[in-house]
Amino acid sequence: MATKTAAQRREEARVEYDAFIRGCPTHQLLGRISDKWVGLVLSALSSGPMRYSDLGRKIPGVSPKMLTQTLRSLERDGLLTRKVTPSVPVRVDYEVTPLGASLSHMLTAVKDWAETHIDQVHEARKRYDAENLRLR
Amino acid sequence: MATKTAAQRREEARVEYDAFIRGCPTHQLLGRISDKWVGLVLSALSSGPMRYSDLGRKIPGVSPKMLTQTLRSLERDGLLTRKVTPSVPVRVDYEVTPLGASLSHMLTAVKDWAETHIDQVHEARKRYDAENLRLR
Repeated sequence: MATKTAAQRREEARVEYDAFIRGCPTHQLLGRISDKWVGLVLSALSSGPMRYSDLGRKIPGVSPKMLTQTLRSLERDGLLTRKVTPSVPVRVDYEVTPLGASLSHMLTAVKDWAETHIDQVHEARKRYDAENLRLR
Repeated sequence: MATKTAAQRREEARVEYDAFIRGCPTHQLLGRISDKWVGLVLSALSSGPMRYSDLGRKIPGVSPKMLTQTLRSLERDGLLTRKVTPSVPVRVDYEVTPLGASLSHMLTAVKDWAETHIDQVHEARKRYDAENLRLR
């Protein structure tokens, strides 16, 4: 019996699951990873492990509660690991897993897209608003 | 004076803007596109134009209100165009713009990631929950 490669198994999974369907578990997972804080945390960690306090400084808009929730959910989903060093004060480091890295580079690309296309989006909004004002 | 290429201008923009900063307009844009309905609508349209009713059938979990809001916001941002054909009944088609296509292929990749890695995420959650139960 021929053994399936990982790529074949993934391709079969892709056909079985359908994130368009609300009841599909992949729809829930897509909802969870389609989140700006998830994108920013995984982008921040894409260049290497970081301490909790450094993550908070890198993403100054995030509240401690939201940062903790996001990190815990990413840890539970197997996308990052949390390492506690029992020093004084306690040191906590976060690092993406190989699974997390496979998602992280995509979300970093989405973040980069926002940074490189914001001007085109602003121009489009101006055109849309002018057009809709004219039609009123 | 040397003329800058589009790639150079984009690279400069990327350095000026920083989506990590809450006050940066790219942070708001990242929040807007980090949305499962945006991901699903742009993924659905990535294979070609679609009518409103076909989009609703392709994404059965979306409410008409949410679908309409999502489409209007994507149109305003210049990511898709809306074409009305004054037939009876009126026919409305949506199509991604070149700007929308540049984002759409990334969001389709994120959706595919969810479909191909859901089993690994489920296994990670089981391990995490078993570990946390043991520690209690």
